[in-house]
Amino acid sequence: MGAATVTASVLIIGNEILSGRTQDLNLVYIAKGLGEQGIVLREARVIPDIVDVIVANVNELRAKDDYVFTTGGIGPTHDDITSACVARAFGLPLVVHPDAHRMFLSYYKPGELNEARMRMAMTPEGATLIPNPISRAPGFRIGNVFVMAGIPSVMQAMFDGVKSGLKGGPPVLSRTIACTVPEGLLAKGLGEIQERWPDLDIGSYPFTRRGTFGVALVLRGRDAARLDQAKEEVADLIRTLGGAPVEE
Amino acid sequence: MGAATVTASVLIIGNEILSGRTQDLNLVYIAKGLGEQGIVLREARVIPDIVDVIVANVNELRAKDDYVFTTGGIGPTHDDITSACVARAFGLPLVVHPDAHRMFLSYYKPGELNEARMRMAMTPEGATLIPNPISRAPGFRIGNVFVMAGIPSVMQAMFDGVKSGLKGGPPVLSRTIACTVPEGLLAKGLGEIQERWPDLDIGSYPFTRRGTFGVALVLRGRDAARLDQAKEEVADLIRTLGGAPVEE
Repeated sequence: MGAATVTASVLIIGNEILSGRTQDLNLVYIAKGLGEQGIVLREARVIPDIVDVIVANVNELRAKDDYVFTTGGIGPTHDDITSACVARAFGLPLVVHPDAHRMFLSYYKPGELNEARMRMAMTPEGATLIPNPISRAPGFRIGNVFVMAGIPSVMQAMFDGVKSGLKGGPPVLSRTIACTVPEGLLAKGLGEIQERWPDLDIGSYPFTRRGTFGVALVLRGRDAARLDQAKEEVADLIRTLGGAPVEE
Repeated sequence: MGAATVTASVLIIGNEILSGRTQDLNLVYIAKGLGEQGIVLREARVIPDIVDVIVANVNELRAKDDYVFTTGGIGPTHDDITSACVARAFGLPLVVHPDAHRMFLSYYKPGELNEARMRMAMTPEGATLIPNPISRAPGFRIGNVFVMAGIPSVMQAMFDGVKSGLKGGPPVLSRTIACTVPEGLLAKGLGEIQERWPDLDIGSYPFTRRGTFGVALVLRGRDAARLDQAKEEVADLIRTLGGAPVEE
Protein backbone atom coordinates (compact mmCIF):
# COMPACT_ATOMS: atom_id res chain seq x y z
CA MET A 1 0.00 0.00 0.00
CA GLY A 2 3.05 2.24 -0.11
CA ALA A 3 5.06 4.04 2.53
CA ALA A 4 2.50 6.81 2.87
CA THR A 5 -0.28 4.50 4.05
CA VAL A 6 -1.80 5.59 7.36
CA THR A 7 -3.19 2.72 9.41
CA ALA A 8 -5.54 2.37 12.35
CA SER A 9 -7.02 -0.25 14.64
CA VAL A 10 -10.09 -0.34 16.85
CA LEU A 11 -10.30 -1.78 20.36
CA ILE A 12 -13.86 -2.45 21.51
CA ILE A 13 -13.77 -2.85 25.28
CA GLY A 14 -16.70 -4.40 27.09
CA ASN A 15 -18.08 -7.62 28.55
CA GLU A 16 -21.52 -6.71 27.19
CA ILE A 17 -20.31 -7.21 23.61
CA LEU A 18 -18.61 -10.54 24.36
CA SER A 19 -21.67 -11.82 26.24
CA GLY A 20 -23.91 -11.11 23.24
CA ARG A 21 -26.03 -8.71 25.29
CA THR A 22 -25.14 -5.74 23.10
CA GLN A 23 -24.77 -5.52 19.33
CA ASP A 24 -21.72 -3.38 18.55
CA LEU A 25 -22.57 -0.48 16.26
CA ASN A 26 -19.37 1.52 16.68
CA LEU A 27 -16.99 -0.39 14.45
CA VAL A 28 -18.96 0.17 11.27
CA TYR A 29 -19.18 3.91 12.01
CA ILE A 30 -15.48 4.31 12.73
CA ALA A 31 -14.59 2.14 9.72
CA LYS A 32 -16.58 4.32 7.31
CA GLY A 33 -15.15 7.51 8.75
CA LEU A 34 -11.58 6.27 8.52
CA GLY A 35 -12.15 5.29 4.88
CA GLU A 36 -13.31 8.84 4.14
CA GLN A 37 -10.05 10.12 5.62
CA GLY A 38 -7.99 7.67 3.55
CA ILE A 39 -6.92 5.73 6.63
CA VAL A 40 -6.64 1.94 6.40
CA LEU A 41 -8.38 0.12 9.25
CA ARG A 42 -6.23 -2.97 9.69
CA GLU A 43 -7.83 -4.73 12.59
CA ALA A 44 -10.49 -4.55 15.28
CA ARG A 45 -10.56 -6.45 18.53
CA VAL A 46 -13.31 -6.99 21.07
CA ILE A 47 -11.92 -7.58 24.55
CA PRO A 48 -13.32 -7.91 28.09
CA ASP A 49 -13.10 -5.52 31.04
CA ILE A 50 -9.91 -7.11 32.41
CA VAL A 51 -6.99 -4.84 33.28
CA ASP A 52 -4.12 -6.94 31.95
CA VAL A 53 -5.94 -7.71 28.72
CA ILE A 54 -6.73 -4.05 28.03
CA VAL A 55 -3.20 -2.88 28.84
CA ALA A 56 -1.59 -5.55 26.64
CA ASN A 57 -3.89 -4.82 23.70
CA VAL A 58 -3.45 -1.05 23.90
CA ASN A 59 0.32 -1.48 23.88
CA GLU A 60 0.31 -4.01 21.07
CA LEU A 61 -1.94 -1.99 18.78
CA ARG A 62 -0.43 1.45 19.43
CA ALA A 63 2.97 0.06 18.43
CA LYS A 64 1.53 -1.43 15.21
CA ASP A 65 -0.74 1.30 13.87
CA ASP A 66 -0.68 5.05 13.39
CA TYR A 67 -3.95 5.44 15.29
CA VAL A 68 -5.83 3.35 17.82
CA PHE A 69 -9.48 4.04 18.70
CA THR A 70 -10.98 2.51 21.83
CA THR A 71 -14.68 2.41 22.68
CA GLY A 72 -16.29 1.70 26.03
CA GLY A 73 -15.43 1.73 29.71
CA ILE A 74 -15.14 5.45 30.49
CA GLY A 75 -18.18 5.93 32.73
CA PRO A 76 -18.34 6.37 36.52
CA THR A 77 -18.94 2.78 37.66
CA HIS A 78 -16.57 0.08 38.93
CA ASP A 79 -16.55 -1.69 35.55
CA ASP A 80 -15.31 1.45 33.76
CA ILE A 81 -11.58 0.83 33.81
CA THR A 82 -10.44 1.93 30.36
CA SER A 83 -8.89 5.27 31.37
CA ALA A 84 -6.85 3.69 34.17
CA CYS A 85 -5.72 0.91 31.84
CA VAL A 86 -4.63 3.31 29.10
CA ALA A 87 -2.67 5.32 31.69
CA ARG A 88 -0.98 2.13 32.81
CA ALA A 89 -0.23 1.13 29.22
CA PHE A 90 1.57 4.46 28.72
CA GLY A 91 3.27 4.30 32.13
CA LEU A 92 1.58 7.58 33.09
CA PRO A 93 -0.26 8.57 36.27
CA LEU A 94 -4.04 8.89 36.05
CA VAL A 95 -4.81 12.45 37.12
CA VAL A 96 -7.73 14.86 37.26
CA HIS A 97 -7.78 16.75 33.97
CA PRO A 98 -8.13 20.46 34.84
CA ASP A 99 -10.45 21.28 31.91
CA ALA A 100 -12.76 18.37 32.68
CA HIS A 101 -12.75 19.30 36.35
CA ARG A 102 -13.69 22.89 35.54
CA MET A 103 -16.48 21.73 33.21
CA PHE A 104 -17.90 19.36 35.85
CA LEU A 105 -17.74 22.07 38.54
CA SER A 106 -19.80 24.40 36.40
CA TYR A 107 -22.30 21.67 35.49
CA TYR A 108 -22.98 19.82 38.74
CA LYS A 109 -24.69 21.49 41.66
CA PRO A 110 -22.69 21.74 44.90
CA GLY A 111 -22.49 18.27 46.48
CA GLU A 112 -23.36 16.43 43.25
CA LEU A 113 -19.79 16.07 42.02
CA ASN A 114 -19.02 12.92 43.96
CA GLU A 115 -16.02 10.60 43.75
CA ALA A 116 -17.60 8.41 41.05
CA ARG A 117 -18.28 11.38 38.78
CA MET A 118 -14.79 12.72 39.38
CA ARG A 119 -13.46 9.46 37.91
CA MET A 120 -14.86 10.67 34.57
CA ALA A 121 -12.65 13.77 34.81
CA MET A 122 -9.50 11.65 35.10
CA THR A 123 -7.12 10.97 32.23
CA PRO A 124 -3.52 9.90 31.81
CA GLU A 125 -1.32 12.92 32.56
CA GLY A 126 -0.90 15.10 29.47
CA ALA A 127 -3.97 13.82 27.62
CA THR A 128 -6.05 16.08 25.36
CA LEU A 129 -9.81 15.95 25.96
CA ILE A 130 -12.24 14.80 23.26
CA PRO A 131 -15.45 16.81 23.70
CA ASN A 132 -18.74 15.03 24.37
CA PRO A 133 -21.59 17.26 23.16
CA ILE A 134 -24.19 14.62 24.15
CA SER A 135 -23.62 13.89 27.82
CA ARG A 136 -20.56 16.00 28.78
CA ALA A 137 -18.17 13.34 30.20
CA PRO A 138 -15.26 13.66 27.75
CA GLY A 139 -13.07 11.15 25.98
CA PHE A 140 -9.38 11.84 25.52
CA ARG A 141 -6.39 11.40 23.29
CA ILE A 142 -3.00 10.34 24.60
CA GLY A 143 -0.23 9.73 22.07
CA ASN A 144 -1.82 7.96 19.12
CA VAL A 145 -4.66 6.46 21.19
CA PHE A 146 -8.17 7.95 21.12
CA VAL A 147 -10.34 6.86 24.05
CA MET A 148 -14.08 7.18 23.37
CA ALA A 149 -17.40 6.23 24.94
CA GLY A 150 -19.27 3.01 24.19
CA ILE A 151 -22.77 4.45 23.75
CA PRO A 152 -23.09 4.84 19.96
CA SER A 153 -24.56 8.36 19.93
CA VAL A 154 -21.80 9.61 22.22
CA MET A 155 -19.07 7.69 20.41
CA GLN A 156 -20.21 9.09 17.08
CA ALA A 157 -20.14 12.67 18.35
CA MET A 158 -16.66 12.15 19.77
CA PHE A 159 -15.36 10.50 16.60
CA ASP A 160 -16.87 13.22 14.39
CA GLY A 161 -15.04 15.76 16.55
CA VAL A 162 -11.61 14.23 16.00
CA LYS A 163 -11.99 12.78 12.50
CA SER A 164 -11.04 15.81 10.46
CA GLY A 165 -7.89 16.30 12.54
CA LEU A 166 -6.50 12.90 11.58
CA LYS A 167 -3.63 12.76 9.14
CA GLY A 168 -4.83 10.55 6.32
CA GLY A 169 -4.30 9.93 2.65
CA PRO A 170 -6.48 10.18 -0.44
CA PRO A 171 -9.90 8.74 0.42
CA VAL A 172 -10.62 5.14 -0.46
CA LEU A 173 -13.23 5.14 -3.24
CA SER A 174 -15.55 2.31 -4.15
CA ARG A 175 -17.75 1.12 -6.98
CA THR A 176 -20.44 -1.50 -6.51
CA ILE A 177 -22.17 -3.61 -9.13
CA ALA A 178 -24.88 -6.09 -8.21
CA CYS A 179 -26.19 -8.95 -10.30
CA THR A 180 -27.91 -12.30 -9.95
CA VAL A 181 -25.26 -14.36 -11.76
CA PRO A 182 -24.11 -17.08 -9.34
CA GLU A 183 -20.73 -16.42 -7.71
CA GLY A 184 -19.56 -19.82 -8.90
CA LEU A 185 -19.87 -18.63 -12.52
CA LEU A 186 -18.39 -15.18 -11.90
CA ALA A 187 -15.40 -16.46 -9.95
CA LYS A 188 -12.99 -17.28 -12.78
CA GLY A 189 -13.42 -14.02 -14.70
CA LEU A 190 -13.49 -11.97 -11.54
CA GLY A 191 -10.21 -13.47 -10.37
CA GLU A 192 -8.69 -12.55 -13.73
CA ILE A 193 -9.89 -8.95 -13.40
CA GLN A 194 -8.40 -8.80 -9.89
CA GLU A 195 -5.07 -9.97 -11.32
CA ARG A 196 -5.14 -7.26 -13.98
CA TRP A 197 -5.85 -4.54 -11.38
CA PRO A 198 -3.59 -5.42 -8.46
CA ASP A 199 -3.87 -1.92 -6.93
CA LEU A 200 -7.63 -2.38 -6.54
CA ASP A 201 -9.34 -4.58 -4.00
CA ILE A 202 -12.22 -6.52 -5.57
CA GLY A 203 -14.64 -8.26 -3.21
CA SER A 204 -17.60 -10.50 -3.94
CA TYR A 205 -20.44 -10.45 -1.39
CA PRO A 206 -23.49 -12.65 -1.82
CA PHE A 207 -26.77 -11.37 -0.43
CA THR A 208 -30.46 -12.23 -0.25
CA ARG A 209 -32.86 -9.39 -1.06
CA ARG A 210 -36.62 -9.85 -1.21
CA GLY A 211 -36.12 -13.60 -1.53
CA THR A 212 -33.67 -13.35 -4.45
CA PHE A 213 -30.05 -14.44 -4.20
CA GLY A 214 -27.62 -11.95 -5.65
CA VAL A 215 -24.05 -10.87 -5.39
CA ALA A 216 -22.53 -7.42 -4.86
CA LEU A 217 -19.16 -6.93 -6.51
CA VAL A 218 -17.28 -4.14 -4.77
CA LEU A 219 -14.17 -2.47 -6.17
CA ARG A 220 -12.14 -0.31 -3.82
CA GLY A 221 -9.12 1.87 -4.51
CA ARG A 222 -7.82 5.42 -4.62
CA ASP A 223 -7.82 6.11 -8.37
CA ALA A 224 -11.28 6.95 -9.70
CA ALA A 225 -10.37 6.45 -13.37
CA ARG A 226 -8.88 3.02 -12.78
CA LEU A 227 -11.88 2.04 -10.65
CA ASP A 228 -14.22 3.04 -13.46
CA GLN A 229 -12.25 1.05 -16.04
CA ALA A 230 -12.14 -2.06 -13.88
CA LYS A 231 -15.83 -1.62 -13.10
CA GLU A 232 -16.59 -1.72 -16.83
CA GLU A 233 -14.69 -5.00 -17.09
CA VAL A 234 -16.81 -6.41 -14.29
CA ALA A 235 -19.99 -5.22 -16.00
CA ASP A 236 -18.85 -6.82 -19.26
CA LEU A 237 -18.13 -10.07 -17.45
CA ILE A 238 -21.65 -10.09 -16.03
CA ARG A 239 -23.16 -9.46 -19.47
CA THR A 240 -21.02 -12.21 -21.02
CA LEU A 241 -22.52 -14.60 -18.49
CA GLY A 242 -26.04 -13.54 -19.42
CA GLY A 243 -26.61 -11.27 -16.43
CA ALA A 244 -27.65 -7.64 -16.02
CA PRO A 245 -25.18 -5.49 -14.09
CA VAL A 246 -26.83 -2.98 -11.74
CA GLU A 247 -24.71 -0.15 -10.41
CA GLU A 248 -25.32 0.68 -6.77
CA MET B 1 -13.11 -18.78 36.61
CA GLY B 2 -11.70 -22.12 37.71
CA ALA B 3 -9.85 -24.90 35.96
CA ALA B 4 -12.98 -26.21 34.30
CA THR B 5 -13.64 -23.01 32.35
CA VAL B 6 -14.03 -23.61 28.63
CA THR B 7 -12.99 -20.64 26.48
CA ALA B 8 -13.52 -19.55 22.91
CA SER B 9 -12.57 -16.78 20.51
CA VAL B 10 -14.08 -15.53 17.27
CA LEU B 11 -12.19 -14.52 14.14
CA ILE B 12 -14.24 -12.40 11.74
CA ILE B 13 -12.50 -12.49 8.38
CA GLY B 14 -13.37 -9.95 5.71
CA ASN B 15 -12.39 -6.63 4.19
CA GLU B 16 -16.09 -5.71 3.96
CA ILE B 17 -16.33 -5.45 7.75
CA LEU B 18 -13.15 -3.38 8.08
CA SER B 19 -14.25 -1.03 5.28
CA GLY B 20 -17.54 -0.33 7.04
CA ARG B 21 -19.52 -1.67 4.09
CA THR B 22 -21.04 -4.47 6.13
CA GLN B 23 -22.35 -4.46 9.70
CA ASP B 24 -21.21 -7.66 11.40
CA LEU B 25 -24.15 -9.60 12.85
CA ASN B 26 -22.37 -12.88 13.54
CA LEU B 27 -20.48 -12.05 16.72
CA VAL B 28 -23.58 -11.33 18.77
CA TYR B 29 -25.17 -14.60 17.62
CA ILE B 30 -22.13 -16.72 18.41
CA ALA B 31 -21.64 -14.91 21.73
CA LYS B 32 -25.17 -15.67 22.91
CA GLY B 33 -24.94 -19.30 21.82
CA LEU B 34 -21.63 -19.82 23.59
CA GLY B 35 -23.09 -18.31 26.77
CA GLU B 36 -25.93 -20.82 26.62
CA GLN B 37 -23.35 -23.60 26.46
CA GLY B 38 -21.42 -22.17 29.40
CA ILE B 39 -18.44 -21.30 27.23
CA VAL B 40 -16.56 -18.06 27.94
CA LEU B 41 -15.97 -15.95 24.85
CA ARG B 42 -12.66 -14.25 25.63
CA GLU B 43 -11.97 -12.25 22.51
CA ALA B 44 -13.09 -11.49 18.98
CA ARG B 45 -10.97 -10.10 16.16
CA VAL B 46 -11.89 -8.62 12.83
CA ILE B 47 -9.13 -9.09 10.26
CA PRO B 48 -8.68 -8.51 6.52
CA ASP B 49 -8.41 -11.03 3.67
CA ILE B 50 -4.62 -11.24 3.87
CA VAL B 51 -3.00 -14.68 3.99
CA ASP B 52 -0.28 -14.01 6.57
CA VAL B 53 -2.67 -12.16 8.87
CA ILE B 54 -5.25 -14.95 8.80
CA VAL B 55 -2.66 -17.70 9.35
CA ALA B 56 -1.04 -15.86 12.27
CA ASN B 57 -4.37 -15.14 13.97
CA VAL B 58 -5.67 -18.68 13.57
CA ASN B 59 -2.50 -20.04 15.13
CA GLU B 60 -2.45 -17.51 17.95
CA LEU B 61 -6.08 -18.03 18.93
CA ARG B 62 -6.22 -21.82 18.59
CA ALA B 63 -3.28 -22.06 20.99
CA LYS B 64 -5.01 -19.77 23.52
CA ASP B 65 -8.59 -20.98 23.55
CA ASP B 66 -10.48 -24.27 23.63
CA TYR B 67 -12.50 -23.31 20.56
CA VAL B 68 -12.02 -20.84 17.71
CA PHE B 69 -14.87 -19.86 15.38
CA THR B 70 -14.11 -18.15 12.09
CA THR B 71 -16.65 -16.44 9.85
CA GLY B 72 -16.27 -15.40 6.22
CA GLY B 73 -14.14 -16.21 3.22
CA ILE B 74 -15.30 -19.71 2.24
CA GLY B 75 -17.05 -18.96 -1.07
CA PRO B 76 -15.85 -19.66 -4.62
CA THR B 77 -14.23 -16.32 -5.54
CA HIS B 78 -10.59 -15.16 -5.47
CA ASP B 79 -11.12 -13.27 -2.20
CA ASP B 80 -12.28 -16.44 -0.40
CA ILE B 81 -9.03 -17.62 1.11
CA THR B 82 -10.01 -18.75 4.60
CA SER B 83 -9.92 -22.52 3.95
CA ALA B 84 -6.46 -22.35 2.37
CA CYS B 85 -5.21 -20.18 5.23
CA VAL B 86 -6.55 -22.52 7.92
CA ALA B 87 -4.89 -25.45 6.13
CA ARG B 88 -1.63 -23.55 6.10
CA ALA B 89 -2.00 -22.63 9.78
CA PHE B 90 -2.31 -26.35 10.62
CA GLY B 91 0.46 -27.35 8.19
CA LEU B 92 -2.00 -29.56 6.31
CA PRO B 93 -2.65 -29.91 2.59
CA LEU B 94 -5.88 -28.41 1.23
CA VAL B 95 -7.70 -31.31 -0.40
CA VAL B 96 -11.07 -32.10 -1.95
CA HIS B 97 -13.29 -33.41 0.84
CA PRO B 98 -14.92 -36.61 -0.49
CA ASP B 99 -18.30 -35.97 1.18
CA ALA B 100 -18.50 -32.41 -0.13
CA HIS B 101 -17.46 -33.62 -3.59
CA ARG B 102 -20.18 -36.26 -3.57
CA MET B 103 -22.80 -33.71 -2.46
CA PHE B 104 -21.78 -31.24 -5.18
CA LEU B 105 -21.82 -33.98 -7.85
CA SER B 106 -25.39 -34.85 -6.97
CA TYR B 107 -26.48 -31.21 -6.85
CA TYR B 108 -24.84 -29.59 -9.88
CA LYS B 109 -25.80 -30.59 -13.41
CA PRO B 110 -23.04 -32.05 -15.59
CA GLY B 111 -20.66 -29.24 -16.57
CA GLU B 112 -21.78 -26.88 -13.79
CA LEU B 113 -19.28 -28.09 -11.21
CA ASN B 114 -16.44 -25.86 -12.35
CA GLU B 115 -13.09 -25.18 -10.71
CA ALA B 116 -14.41 -22.25 -8.66
CA ARG B 117 -17.22 -24.33 -7.18
CA MET B 118 -14.83 -27.18 -6.48
CA ARG B 119 -12.87 -24.79 -4.26
CA MET B 120 -15.87 -24.86 -1.92
CA ALA B 121 -15.44 -28.63 -1.57
CA MET B 122 -11.85 -28.25 -0.36
CA THR B 123 -10.80 -28.44 3.28
CA PRO B 124 -7.62 -29.11 5.21
CA GLU B 125 -6.97 -32.87 5.09
CA GLY B 126 -8.88 -34.68 7.84
CA ALA B 127 -11.45 -31.93 8.44
CA THR B 128 -15.04 -32.73 9.43
CA LEU B 129 -17.72 -30.95 7.40
CA ILE B 130 -20.19 -28.54 9.01
CA PRO B 131 -23.49 -28.89 7.13
CA ASN B 132 -25.00 -25.87 5.40
CA PRO B 133 -28.77 -26.40 5.14
CA ILE B 134 -29.24 -22.98 3.45
CA SER B 135 -26.97 -22.96 0.42
CA ARG B 136 -25.13 -26.33 0.55
CA ALA B 137 -21.46 -25.24 0.49
CA PRO B 138 -20.28 -26.58 3.84
CA GLY B 139 -18.08 -25.23 6.58
CA PHE B 140 -15.67 -27.50 8.41
CA ARG B 141 -14.00 -28.25 11.68
CA ILE B 142 -10.30 -29.02 11.95
CA GLY B 143 -8.81 -29.48 15.41
CA ASN B 144 -10.43 -26.88 17.66
CA VAL B 145 -11.18 -24.47 14.79
CA PHE B 146 -14.68 -24.16 13.29
CA VAL B 147 -14.72 -22.50 9.87
CA MET B 148 -18.09 -20.98 8.98
CA ALA B 149 -19.68 -18.79 6.30
CA GLY B 150 -19.96 -15.01 6.58
CA ILE B 151 -23.59 -14.61 5.45
CA PRO B 152 -25.53 -14.43 8.73
CA SER B 153 -28.34 -16.85 7.80
CA VAL B 154 -25.80 -19.46 6.70
CA MET B 155 -23.47 -18.83 9.63
CA GLN B 156 -26.35 -19.20 12.07
CA ALA B 157 -27.44 -22.52 10.57
CA MET B 158 -23.85 -23.81 10.72
CA PHE B 159 -23.34 -22.64 14.29
CA ASP B 160 -26.67 -24.12 15.41
CA GLY B 161 -25.54 -27.40 13.92
CA VAL B 162 -22.33 -27.60 15.94
CA LYS B 163 -23.35 -25.77 19.13
CA SER B 164 -24.82 -28.68 21.06
CA GLY B 165 -21.73 -30.78 20.39
CA LEU B 166 -19.43 -28.31 22.15
CA LYS B 167 -18.07 -29.26 25.55
CA GLY B 168 -19.12 -26.47 27.87
CA GLY B 169 -19.90 -25.79 31.48
CA PRO B 170 -22.97 -24.70 33.40
CA PRO B 171 -24.67 -21.93 31.39
CA VAL B 172 -23.93 -18.33 32.30
CA LEU B 173 -27.11 -16.85 33.79
CA SER B 174 -28.01 -13.19 33.98
CA ARG B 175 -30.35 -10.85 35.82
CA THR B 176 -31.08 -7.35 34.58
CA ILE B 177 -32.53 -4.41 36.49
CA ALA B 178 -33.17 -1.08 34.83
CA CYS B 179 -33.73 2.26 36.50
CA THR B 180 -33.40 5.97 35.83
CA VAL B 181 -31.09 6.76 38.75
CA PRO B 182 -27.93 8.37 37.27
CA GLU B 183 -24.91 6.08 37.06
CA GLY B 184 -22.89 8.66 38.96
CA LEU B 185 -25.13 8.13 42.00
CA LEU B 186 -25.30 4.34 41.69
CA ALA B 187 -21.56 3.90 41.23
CA LYS B 188 -20.40 3.79 44.85
CA GLY B 189 -23.00 1.32 46.10
CA LEU B 190 -22.74 -0.79 42.98
CA GLY B 191 -18.98 -1.09 43.39
CA GLU B 192 -19.54 -2.25 46.97
CA ILE B 193 -22.02 -4.90 45.83
CA GLN B 194 -19.53 -6.10 43.21
CA GLU B 195 -16.91 -6.45 45.96
CA ARG B 196 -19.27 -8.52 48.07
CA TRP B 197 -20.06 -10.87 45.16
CA PRO B 198 -16.68 -11.46 43.48
CA ASP B 199 -17.90 -14.55 41.61
CA LEU B 200 -20.52 -12.46 39.80
CA ASP B 201 -19.86 -9.98 37.03
CA ILE B 202 -21.88 -6.80 37.50
CA GLY B 203 -22.06 -4.39 34.58
CA SER B 204 -23.66 -0.97 34.28
CA TYR B 205 -24.93 0.02 30.83
CA PRO B 206 -26.51 3.41 30.22
CA PHE B 207 -29.15 3.65 27.51
CA THR B 208 -31.61 6.09 25.98
CA ARG B 209 -35.14 4.79 25.48
CA ARG B 210 -37.97 6.94 24.18
CA GLY B 211 -35.95 10.04 25.04
CA THR B 212 -35.30 8.99 28.65
CA PHE B 213 -31.82 8.25 29.96
CA GLY B 214 -31.64 5.08 31.99
CA VAL B 215 -29.19 2.46 33.06
CA ALA B 216 -29.36 -1.33 32.85
CA LEU B 217 -27.57 -3.15 35.64
CA VAL B 218 -26.66 -6.65 34.53
CA LEU B 219 -25.52 -9.40 36.87
CA ARG B 220 -23.97 -12.48 35.32
CA GLY B 221 -22.85 -15.73 36.92
CA ARG B 222 -23.51 -19.45 37.19
CA ASP B 223 -25.32 -19.66 40.54
CA ALA B 224 -28.97 -18.68 40.29
CA ALA B 225 -29.48 -18.31 44.04
CA ARG B 226 -26.49 -16.01 44.45
CA LEU B 227 -27.57 -13.98 41.41
CA ASP B 228 -31.00 -13.49 42.93
CA GLN B 229 -29.55 -12.39 46.26
CA ALA B 230 -27.17 -9.90 44.65
CA LYS B 231 -29.99 -8.68 42.44
CA GLU B 232 -32.02 -7.86 45.55
CA GLU B 233 -29.13 -5.81 46.88
CA VAL B 234 -29.04 -3.87 43.61
CA ALA B 235 -32.80 -3.28 43.78
CA ASP B 236 -32.44 -2.07 47.39
CA LEU B 237 -29.65 0.30 46.35
CA ILE B 238 -31.88 1.78 43.66
CA ARG B 239 -34.74 2.27 46.12
CA THR B 240 -32.40 3.87 48.68
CA LEU B 241 -31.46 6.41 45.99
CA GLY B 242 -35.13 7.19 45.35
CA GLY B 243 -35.43 5.14 42.16
CA ALA B 244 -37.77 2.39 40.99
CA PRO B 245 -36.03 -0.86 40.00
CA VAL B 246 -37.57 -2.56 36.96
CA GLU B 247 -36.67 -6.18 36.30
CA GLU B 248 -36.04 -7.01 32.64
